[in-house]
Amino acid sequence: MRAEIIAVGTELLLGQIVNTNAIYLSQKLADLGIDVYFQTVVGDNAARIRLAIETARTRADLLLFTGGLGPTQDDLTKDALAEYLGRDLLIHQPSMDKIEAMFAARGVHMVESNRRQALMLQGSEPLFNEAGLAVGNALTVDGTHYLLLPGPPREMRTMFDGPAAAWLRKLSGEQKKLYSRTLKFAGIGESNLEQELLDLIEAQSDPTIAPYAKEGEVAIRLSTKAADEKEAALRLDLTEEQIRARTGQYMYAAEDIPLEEAVVRLLRAKGLKMSTAESCTGGLLAELITTVPGSSGEFKGAVVTYTNEMKHELLGIPLSQLEGADAPGAISESTAALMAERVRERAKSDYGISLTGVAGPAESEGKPVGLVYCGIARNGRPTAVYTMQLSGSRSIIRQRAAKAALYRLWQELNGLKG
Amino acid sequence: MRAEIIAVGTELLLGQIVNTNAIYLSQKLADLGIDVYFQTVVGDNAARIRLAIETARTRADLLLFTGGLGPTQDDLTKDALAEYLGRDLLIHQPSMDKIEAMFAARGVHMVESNRRQALMLQGSEPLFNEAGLAVGNALTVDGTHYLLLPGPPREMRTMFDGPAAAWLRKLSGEQKKLYSRTLKFAGIGESNLEQELLDLIEAQSDPTIAPYAKEGEVAIRLSTKAADEKEAALRLDLTEEQIRARTGQYMYAAEDIPLEEAVVRLLRAKGLKMSTAESCTGGLLAELITTVPGSSGEFKGAVVTYTNEMKHELLGIPLSQLEGADAPGAISESTAALMAERVRERAKSDYGISLTGVAGPAESEGKPVGLVYCGIARNGRPTAVYTMQLSGSRSIIRQRAAKAALYRLWQELNGLKG
Repeated sequence: MRAEIIAVGTELLLGQIVNTNAIYLSQKLADLGIDVYFQTVVGDNAARIRLAIETARTRADLLLFTGGLGPTQDDLTKDALAEYLGRDLLIHQPSMDKIEAMFAARGVHMVESNRRQALMLQGSEPLFNEAGLAVGNALTVDGTHYLLLPGPPREMRTMFDGPAAAWLRKLSGEQKKLYSRTLKFAGIGESNLEQELLDLIEAQSDPTIAPYAKEGEVAIRLSTKAADEKEAALRLDLTEEQIRARTGQYMYAAEDIPLEEAVVRLLRAKGLKMSTAESCTGGLLAELITTVPGSSGEFKGAVVTYTNEMKHELLGIPLSQLEGADAPGAISESTAALMAERVRERAKSDYGISLTGVAGPAESEGKPVGLVYCGIARNGRPTAVYTMQLSGSRSIIRQRAAKAALYRLWQELNGLKG
Repeated sequence: MRAEIIAVGTELLLGQIVNTNAIYLSQKLADLGIDVYFQTVVGDNAARIRLAIETARTRADLLLFTGGLGPTQDDLTKDALAEYLGRDLLIHQPSMDKIEAMFAARGVHMVESNRRQALMLQGSEPLFNEAGLAVGNALTVDGTHYLLLPGPPREMRTMFDGPAAAWLRKLSGEQKKLYSRTLKFAGIGESNLEQELLDLIEAQSDPTIAPYAKEGEVAIRLSTKAADEKEAALRLDLTEEQIRARTGQYMYAAEDIPLEEAVVRLLRAKGLKMSTAESCTGGLLAELITTVPGSSGEFKGAVVTYTNEMKHELLGIPLSQLEGADAPGAISESTAALMAERVRERAKSDYGISLTGVAGPAESEGKPVGLVYCGIARNGRPTAVYTMQLSGSRSIIRQRAAKAALYRLWQELNGLKG
């Protein structure tokens, strides 16, 4: 079955609200094994809603509407569909009772227009609104299925997960379900990763292999339609193995978790602790690690030494190392090493990670924007320093530097490097 | 002019990413006085992209594409439009040069497919990609205008705000332009701010007054259609004054800048420096401040003391203050005060800002999730400590705590408090 999601609301066209309903419904429909080929957003205008219906009918057999079921004059979805299908609008009494009871309870006078929320298309199945007042509708006409859901996300989700999903399961009863698995990679770009797997990606129809890039990470989503979890797992395992065999050294997880979480889990498994000393990233690396709940077990703390004075004050790095004509300077391999070693000592942690470089927009110490040194100090082995030349805006460089440091630590913890 | 925004990407249809480009472009097109009647999302499929083009042509005279300009096999927007219009794809040499230079600089082998990013439609105006590699396209065929922008939001925004908007202004040159001004507020919620201004918002048709909530900040967007800048400024000034008269104590800027930038500017103007000591926010406050270019002049550094041991080691806070049955504990008013005072001394800064609390998901020291203390230590005056009970997820609480600390410092710098 091919679905089109039609979100109705001028506020979406004006960019006043994000279309979060579309992302929610897309995920839920995928899980039901229903393909979404198009999403449409149309304003609160009867003629244009009808136009959207006409268009969608030519390219989908399930039209899923959200929004426009409310009480106001510009809530027109039911009216537009009723007119398009030549159906009457009838009162759904249980919904009307709920509306009247609600106003009675509040002791507020009910405006007549609120009755509009109890209207349903003649011959449709009413979908009771547990989380609000406007009744939903489900009906099939000439082989096309129509599903009308409210716009407020909480109401829409409650109604979809309940009666709407049940109705869809009946429709697509015989269909297989879509099972997905996400593989996460770091230390390799999207296009290079895809290059490594190109023949697989092109050959594979089931499971499908879809790469997409996040900042400093790449995800590959494997999807297969199967009768049950077991059948799906079998296929996904096979494809995962093929990918692992080629690019396993970059693959940090077989689930959709950020790199920092993979690192924290590894530290936890090995009973190790870390700390960071940051300059150009301004605390971003510490911030990323501490987004992981319970990371206080593995992360002891950080110093953000944004000035030479602070590098001296908090880490005891001699000013002769940082300033003066012959000094290596704050942005140097040796300073990165010192920062990592000193924070490791101060924090009494197993690993000390440092980042010092030029986030931009302007160069610093005569060093170019994007030059970043990452130091990794560890017990009983020489400190490793990685030199990076990153590109992008100030915030992108900071983000990439922090993710690169996490990747180097992940490699280290896996005994892949250093 | 009627526009349709066509976002290309299967990841959107699968609900893997939110269509933030649509909301950004909708706002920007409104600013240009261009009506958006439909938004469409279509997958990485040439036939369906062509179908979306055919449909959009019947109901819009500007087709604005985002996504599908990248290097991979499923980046098909240019190919699909070229085929639909019967145009060839040519190399845009400046973009090709940039691509080759980038790979050369990184010393990474360039995959052949990366050349695809330099392709442009025959007879189109190339839009150079300042923030990335894929060149944009702008062309008009048979009275329909086509604008091709990259999918990554940062690249798309940079290209739209630059060459794309310039091209559109030429197209809609004769129309009255929409002029906007954004007022930024902190320390007050969206609904409370709206309540304060409700009669203005309802009465005003031009300039329009539209509030938008961001995390820890609220923006109010004033928009007016005017013949020129001067006429617009006159109207916007009047409305801004009305709003300032009622809610000026919360208004930190009359332009769309984040709170941290307003704080850094104030510090710079007063020649003052700050430092932070963070526990529950894990470095987020330092990270926010250092997103502001040049903040090293006002921000000396931070300590992220994620454990009691680190609070003792880096800030010299006695363990008797932190641990033991009768101790105030790490999450307490007195510890917040000590953290702020100690980091101020250590960093030799004018202000020391501290945050300690419970970000969740679980309670800590028997204290509830969302309880956060913010300390502000300053020269020659007693340290102020603010107690907050915040709600939301772990990341929301961290975000709100950091913004609340910035707001308190902003008040302090304005002599509004403390």
